[in-house]
Amino acid sequence: MRIAIYGYGNLGRGVECAAKRNRDMELVGVFTRRSPEKVKTLTGVNVYSADDVLKFKDAIDVLIICGGSATDLPVLTPMLAQHFNTVDSFDTHARIPEHFASVDAVASASGHTSLISGGWDPGMFSLNRLLATVILPDGKDYTFWGRGVSQGHSDAIRRIDGVADARQYTVPVQAAVDSVRNGENPELTTRDKHTRECFVVAEEGADKAAIEEAIVTMPNYFADYDTTVTFITQEEMDRDHTGLPHGGSVLRSGVTGIDGEYLDTIEFTLNLESNPYFTGSVLTAVARAAVRMAAEGVTGGKTIFDIPPCYLAETPREELIAHML
Amino acid sequence: MRIAIYGYGNLGRGVECAAKRNRDMELVGVFTRRSPEKVKTLTGVNVYSADDVLKFKDAIDVLIICGGSATDLPVLTPMLAQHFNTVDSFDTHARIPEHFASVDAVASASGHTSLISGGWDPGMFSLNRLLATVILPDGKDYTFWGRGVSQGHSDAIRRIDGVADARQYTVPVQAAVDSVRNGENPELTTRDKHTRECFVVAEEGADKAAIEEAIVTMPNYFADYDTTVTFITQEEMDRDHTGLPHGGSVLRSGVTGIDGEYLDTIEFTLNLESNPYFTGSVLTAVARAAVRMAAEGVTGGKTIFDIPPCYLAETPREELIAHML
Repeated sequence: MRIAIYGYGNLGRGVECAAKRNRDMELVGVFTRRSPEKVKTLTGVNVYSADDVLKFKDAIDVLIICGGSATDLPVLTPMLAQHFNTVDSFDTHARIPEHFASVDAVASASGHTSLISGGWDPGMFSLNRLLATVILPDGKDYTFWGRGVSQGHSDAIRRIDGVADARQYTVPVQAAVDSVRNGENPELTTRDKHTRECFVVAEEGADKAAIEEAIVTMPNYFADYDTTVTFITQEEMDRDHTGLPHGGSVLRSGVTGIDGEYLDTIEFTLNLESNPYFTGSVLTAVARAAVRMAAEGVTGGKTIFDIPPCYLAETPREELIAHML
Repeated sequence: MRIAIYGYGNLGRGVECAAKRNRDMELVGVFTRRSPEKVKTLTGVNVYSADDVLKFKDAIDVLIICGGSATDLPVLTPMLAQHFNTVDSFDTHARIPEHFASVDAVASASGHTSLISGGWDPGMFSLNRLLATVILPDGKDYTFWGRGVSQGHSDAIRRIDGVADARQYTVPVQAAVDSVRNGENPELTTRDKHTRECFVVAEEGADKAAIEEAIVTMPNYFADYDTTVTFITQEEMDRDHTGLPHGGSVLRSGVTGIDGEYLDTIEFTLNLESNPYFTGSVLTAVARAAVRMAAEGVTGGKTIFDIPPCYLAETPREELIAHML
């Protein structure tokens, strides 16, 4: 199976590493919008200009598009789905129907298989929300994120006057998680579910009290949360906060029985030392399924909800049935 | 969607209750090998003799076979797959390939869709083992069961001389679960992973020390575990131990990154107040998928690994994409 990476940031590097761990895959190359000669890959795989990607139409079974959801993917995925089977990790939940429609239109017309939102949320978390809901139709869903770095919130802090650097961690409130796990079916506000921890490097002479006030009162990002701000040095930032850990839990509690007399909880939890590398690993497995669906003529826009799980696996179906079922 | 239940014990009652919670389903009836007039259903749905099931060939879209794996299902599922789309919860892991082969042969020839092992283990646990493995190919799997009642172990105790009644709980060792969750990748023996708690009612005048010795030294069932035996009265048994709770966790920890430098854990956990009612709820969702696959001509023997997840849901695909992805 010949895969390629379009866009080479942390996510692209995650796919590159994952491809090495899947023996049925060959990584054809990395396509970049930067100057190829300036891009050094982790594995030494070839780097090409994004402008040349169409020259590889017959050499690539699936293109894994590693771009941002805000501006990159809404343009890139429909453009590339004209010529390739594709996988992306589009993660702006509110705009998924719009993105799906535009990708589906192109892929259906071109006869390719284009799977969107194939990371962990959306992606694996979505799949577990679906599974839990179909099993326990009478129930309630909860999603907790973290402890993990939110790039969007970190960026929002960095835009404040006097801030040199910042890193924001989203942290689930343990008491809320425990209450859901215990089947207490709590009503939880935004504030009840997560706290936000901000580590900030102030510029010399900056007004730290003003920075803290600007953070904790920032609408949408922080005002609805219990937020803590800790000022640190750039050295501390570089030493303690370079990682991109993340994770979280999807929980559903619901009832069975003639009168709902039995209470069950279903939980799916991820604990990730590297968010982009794990996302890249999910995309790589999903790319295998996209190639198989394409080979069967199952084309158009797809999501994780459309994939027969055995299509994700390198191991043949009979072996999965014998050893994993 | 017209479903029917073949076999009416706890599992059949679980399916009956689940069918009520799925608005797109109509429960045609319950088929029993007992005298139908002696069977009283929870919802008042019709009860028919198992001998008459073929008269309903055109009135049933899928038959959910609720029998035991030791002797019932190996006979019933192939027999019924000649005439119906079927779902079962066959759970003898070692004999799955054999059961699959016999069901697949019949269903492929008759043009029906017959899904085996569609409960939670095998079933949902299997699916999560597959998902975790494809995402983290370099990793290690762990499955913990409980705290829950094991019918097989309870029965084994009841066969000991002097035992009037018994209930056995399988209990995961919390320290082992925590070690896996922390990514410590422990090597765990059978004894390290689970303990066994036995509650026993002795017959009057029975030798309790001999009973306890017979339990804790019983090969396969108890000898490899730390087992506790507590003697209770029949009244205490009836008051405290009538439920059939169960559950457990599937965990995988594995690495990403160029040199495996990032450690991730994936966990799926069930906490169930009623094992058979939850299993019945899973079978009901899976039955929906079997009907849809049959309608598309996807026939033969199937497992949870073959189901596109959106086929499990009452909610249309577009709504799933918009609201659950």
